[in-house]
Amino acid sequence: MTEITERPLISIVVGSVRPVRIGDQIAEAIAPIIAEASGARVQIIDLAELNLPMLDEPLMPAMGNYTHAHTKAWSEIIAGSDSVVFLTPQYNGGYPAALKNAIDYLYAEWKAQPALIVSYGGHGGGQAAAQLQQVLDFIGLNTAAGSVEITIPRDGYGTDWRLVDAEPIVAVAADALRAASATLTENALVH
Amino acid sequence: MTEITERPLISIVVGSVRPVRIGDQIAEAIAPIIAEASGARVQIIDLAELNLPMLDEPLMPAMGNYTHAHTKAWSEIIAGSDSVVFLTPQYNGGYPAALKNAIDYLYAEWKAQPALIVSYGGHGGGQAAAQLQQVLDFIGLNTAAGSVEITIPRDGYGTDWRLVDAEPIVAVAADALRAASATLTENALVH
Repeated sequence: MTEITERPLISIVVGSVRPVRIGDQIAEAIAPIIAEASGARVQIIDLAELNLPMLDEPLMPAMGNYTHAHTKAWSEIIAGSDSVVFLTPQYNGGYPAALKNAIDYLYAEWKAQPALIVSYGGHGGGQAAAQLQQVLDFIGLNTAAGSVEITIPRDGYGTDWRLVDAEPIVAVAADALRAASATLTENALVH
Repeated sequence: MTEITERPLISIVVGSVRPVRIGDQIAEAIAPIIAEASGARVQIIDLAELNLPMLDEPLMPAMGNYTHAHTKAWSEIIAGSDSVVFLTPQYNGGYPAALKNAIDYLYAEWKAQPALIVSYGGHGGGQAAAQLQQVLDFIGLNTAAGSVEITIPRDGYGTDWRLVDAEPIVAVAADALRAASATLTENALVH
């Protein structure tokens, strides 16, 4: 008798692509917390590496008729994920362009996709999270897991504007992250 | 005796850059209405032509220390404008990435800049306008002129997804546009 138990796959999407950023550091610090609390496999999808150009598909994403290789690759990542963590900085009270661009590329892949928003900023990035949640609700993701805010203290940065150590900063939000991650798994789409 | 009366300059920023779009058509149709109601000079700034890459400045825009030619060119356009009309489509309940990207590139140029939001969509794009206004308020533009919604009827599109004729579509919102444009001029920063 063979028993196959496939654990769900959570993709953490790093929403900041600026040359100087901390999103990649936060992603590395939250990944093990999310993995442990959810029991899922976790992969980090870095939009900086994906390097999507500004939305250049000739047809509406709702048609699902993609022409570019970069769109197809991105579509496969999300279609193959059982839930998605959107890791977003707050830029000027809103979400970053790179993250919105990546979201706007796809359509059917997002439907009923369980999502967790993790925002960060000097005040936790709550305004960006609120705007992003409106967008995810509009598209029809399952946002029952809500959002978690990570506050970045001013003295957390080194002279290179990178975090000296992301772990203690993320640790402050670890309980909220664990609770949200558990909700995410309960709602996960298992492919 | 020489009298120099410099009329203020309004820049209409076309916020959509997708291969198939109608923003350029809407811009051409609203420009004469705004010019007449405001008494200002009006220029159309097309983000598709400006072709800004995803924000790639190494330093925070608040420092005003730009390294790239594309950033300096964009900075000069906004610094030289007495007020700005943000023409935005609604994508998935929010503003398009290209517009947010352009906004996030600058900082000081936006302070106290009188702004009018013109949104468009099947339902007027009000959700995108609301999110955009939060961003503009966060940065510190003068948003007293508010926003104007332009509803695009389904039968307004040709088979190429372009508007058959933008003028009658814009005409429905012309009164609101004229009133908002007048407010814009009253608040204009004259350089």
